[in-house]
Amino acid sequence: MTIAQTAPTALELSYGELYARVQHFYAHHMHLLDSGAAEQWAATFTEDGVFAPPSAPEPIAGRRALAEGAREAKQRLDEIGEQHRHVLVSLALDPADADGVLTARTYAQVIATPRGGAPRLDMMCVTHDQLVVRDGEVLLRHRRVTRDDRP
Amino acid sequence: MTIAQTAPTALELSYGELYARVQHFYAHHMHLLDSGAAEQWAATFTEDGVFAPPSAPEPIAGRRALAEGAREAKQRLDEIGEQHRHVLVSLALDPADADGVLTARTYAQVIATPRGGAPRLDMMCVTHDQLVVRDGEVLLRHRRVTRDDRP
Amino acid sequence: MTIAQTAPTALELSYGELYARVQHFYAHHMHLLDSGAAEQWAATFTEDGVFAPPSAPEPIAGRRALAEGAREAKQRLDEIGEQHRHVLVSLALDPADADGVLTARTYAQVIATPRGGAPRLDMMCVTHDQLVVRDGEVLLRHRRVTRDDRP
Repeated sequence: MTIAQTAPTALELSYGELYARVQHFYAHHMHLLDSGAAEQWAATFTEDGVFAPPSAPEPIAGRRALAEGAREAKQRLDEIGEQHRHVLVSLALDPADADGVLTARTYAQVIATPRGGAPRLDMMCVTHDQLVVRDGEVLLRHRRVTRDDRP
Repeated sequence: MTIAQTAPTALELSYGELYARVQHFYAHHMHLLDSGAAEQWAATFTEDGVFAPPSAPEPIAGRRALAEGAREAKQRLDEIGEQHRHVLVSLALDPADADGVLTARTYAQVIATPRGGAPRLDMMCVTHDQLVVRDGEVLLRHRRVTRDDRP
Repeated sequence: MTIAQTAPTALELSYGELYARVQHFYAHHMHLLDSGAAEQWAATFTEDGVFAPPSAPEPIAGRRALAEGAREAKQRLDEIGEQHRHVLVSLALDPADADGVLTARTYAQVIATPRGGAPRLDMMCVTHDQLVVRDGEVLLRHRRVTRDDRP
């Protein structure tokens, strides 16, 4: 069995296979963030991955900074007793470009549930992502997020 | 390379390929509507495509009327300063019938975010669609929408 | 045509095919529950399927008990005039184990719409499922649900 067979690149996978793997990736990626697995979440980015959230004054770059940001965010939520869920839906996925980079866009719902209380739709966003497939694994290279309340 | 290879019909695609393409289609379709790209949105219907929304007294038929309706809806939202998002989830997709027509059903959340305000779940609906695949491209032939608040 | 071709097992399907079939399964499964098709909903479980919801004192086992629970839940909703929708999103799907059992996790939104009123996000949950593929058909063997308001 060759490496190519065990670890296909984005260019070797059919659209359906890519689409399923990206959807699974997003689910896993957000399960990690929402459960506070900050280092594992950061590892779903490339080494030099960039996250440009609407709340940060400048983009967060690299796994160390990403993990630190996720850890701090989770700590704040634990202090106020809220569980947040980042739900990425409505995935528009462009086929890989010549370099194997995938461009993806999703709608993102942030749902907050206080301990013992009712859930609320906290924020509605759009994500603009660049993804790569390395050794058969999807990784996030760049994410920009826009908020619907700030047009 | 033959046409069949570059532009498979619904009957030639595996279920997984079809499912992925329909999910991508829905995401793209609603990104266009929600961003106000009325003509491009209308072009995701077949030439004689029909949209039977719960709000209209009778179905809207054909791309020209569809584009006009989308343009007017976007204008009203711009006037009140709201961004709406149509999120289609829970896709049940039947395999193509003998004519290559796909039957699909989704749950549809309409999420409204006022400028500077919190998002709200505005409406919960169910979509009942007929789709076709032409030249490898998914198109919407008929959509009927029911609202959960009007049983 | 052999049986293996018409009815592949979980181990014979590609990841993309499995992912699509599980997504379709979840959509169909919840359409049945939400529309009150209690027996058909129960039949999407294996014969000895188990459902451990957060609201029940102990797990519900077997199709007869599952159908009864679904019927009673629908009756209560009809009495108060609410339509509920169970929206499973953010599917993380592990490939089949050696026995062909699939492990899946989703975020689950329960959306309630009173007759003539506005929808509300009623509950935010996480589902933890074991699924099997029998005669080409996905079936639910075990579901455990956790609620975000009860950490």
